[in-house]
Amino acid sequence: MKRIAILGPGLLGGSLALKLREAGACTVALWARRAEAVEEIRQRACADVASTDIAQVVRDADAVVFCVPVEAMAVVAHEVAKFVKPGALVTDVGSVKARVVAELGGIFQGKARFVGSHPMAGSEFTGLISADARLFDGATCIVTPDSTTAPDAISDATEFWHGVGCRVVRLAAEEHDACVALISHLPHVVAGALVLNAAAQNPHAFSVVGPGFRDSTRVASGPPEMWAGILRENAAAVTSALDALIAKLTELRHILAARAVDEQALHAYLATAKTTRDRINFPK
Amino acid sequence: MKRIAILGPGLLGGSLALKLREAGACTVALWARRAEAVEEIRQRACADVASTDIAQVVRDADAVVFCVPVEAMAVVAHEVAKFVKPGALVTDVGSVKARVVAELGGIFQGKARFVGSHPMAGSEFTGLISADARLFDGATCIVTPDSTTAPDAISDATEFWHGVGCRVVRLAAEEHDACVALISHLPHVVAGALVLNAAAQNPHAFSVVGPGFRDSTRVASGPPEMWAGILRENAAAVTSALDALIAKLTELRHILAARAVDEQALHAYLATAKTTRDRINFPK
Repeated sequence: MKRIAILGPGLLGGSLALKLREAGACTVALWARRAEAVEEIRQRACADVASTDIAQVVRDADAVVFCVPVEAMAVVAHEVAKFVKPGALVTDVGSVKARVVAELGGIFQGKARFVGSHPMAGSEFTGLISADARLFDGATCIVTPDSTTAPDAISDATEFWHGVGCRVVRLAAEEHDACVALISHLPHVVAGALVLNAAAQNPHAFSVVGPGFRDSTRVASGPPEMWAGILRENAAAVTSALDALIAKLTELRHILAARAVDEQALHAYLATAKTTRDRINFPK
Repeated sequence: MKRIAILGPGLLGGSLALKLREAGACTVALWARRAEAVEEIRQRACADVASTDIAQVVRDADAVVFCVPVEAMAVVAHEVAKFVKPGALVTDVGSVKARVVAELGGIFQGKARFVGSHPMAGSEFTGLISADARLFDGATCIVTPDSTTAPDAISDATEFWHGVGCRVVRLAAEEHDACVALISHLPHVVAGALVLNAAAQNPHAFSVVGPGFRDSTRVASGPPEMWAGILRENAAAVTSALDALIAKLTELRHILAARAVDEQALHAYLATAKTTRDRINFPK
């Protein structure tokens, strides 16, 4: 691929641009909605072309990567569809996939080869200012084809994400949404609840926090606008994950509140959690 | 203080011994229950004296630091009380304080100067093998005097923890237990629930975990025996913290499950969690 268009100069779009520029194998064109953002892109020198003109950015691109918030994808996609090079690879980095895949799949049908992606990279920091060429190194990228996806779109997207340092996993969009509800969206909501709960219950609590609380709640410092969009988009899966978690916590609550704590049940809870977590193969 | 006795060669006792040896200002005597542990201490060269004989370890010590599990404190304290040097400073590193302070305060009354401590250091790794002289660097240590504590015990304990690199905060034992329930024990229980819940709900979930889930659940890899002891010991405060957390999560569940998501309420939840967390002054 000679020219890659990236739409949206946030943490993910910016990091992707930096990585591709570093590799130097293609021209990087970066679209931003605001003129100030284009100026920032130029100052950071992370793209060969930077513009608010979507036609200029996508017209000659062999691949187009949507790095805009999930709720903005469809609107931007309608614009892109007018100018996209026939047969170009189109993908996105959205954290929720079922609707994005259905919508963008439909919009690009017969015009370009769309397949959904979700690189599990990011941090609580946001914007081009936090962009880092190494953001994708060793990260898992989930590619979410459906029955309408062109087979070479899957292989091209896989190659693309490998190229920027990811390991690639393939999942159906609905399966993806159920999984990330459990391992990303639910932990986000819970981190927020831990912070809000401690603040509400005891004014001294934050004066004694250690590295455990720092790590347990790190994700709660993520951007509220982005997370509101993700949670709204994946509300059904998150609600179901949340119900199961509340049931699990209520189970433990009964163990702890019993007149005589059931030692065996308490130990089993902690030991199973430990051995289960110790077996997880975390990337990086 | 010329001679310091440390009881228990685990992560905390071992790290403390290494730090004091590194500073080189005093003799370090380390007690272990098992002969194999004494052998390990000798191999690691982290104490001047290592023994299973508690009399030999504590007899001439100017300070005695209990680094045994909370449920073992009282039993060991009765032994120590027979041999402790009159007026020696006695403290501990227990994660739960109300009962330890009442029990050890009573046992050492008129024999030595006891004050409770809780250095908020540690990790999911355990044992002498994970000991690290830098473990206490920048960590918060909570000192928990009560009305019976000798004032110079407070100042001596404060100086001691400063000396190994901690910043010291003073809290009543009950206040301590309420705070750590919120910022340490509850996050531990929740991290376990996140792991168990994901494992139970979707077998693919762990194939797509990223750094967020790794950090959110890190503490769940801690030692189950130790954590069972802590949770049992602080069951009332943890139960109350858990009830408040479940109420907070249920609130969010209703926002997400509504036919039309209340955007303002969702944003307020996420934004307040973020700004509250961003204001926390994490040590290190």
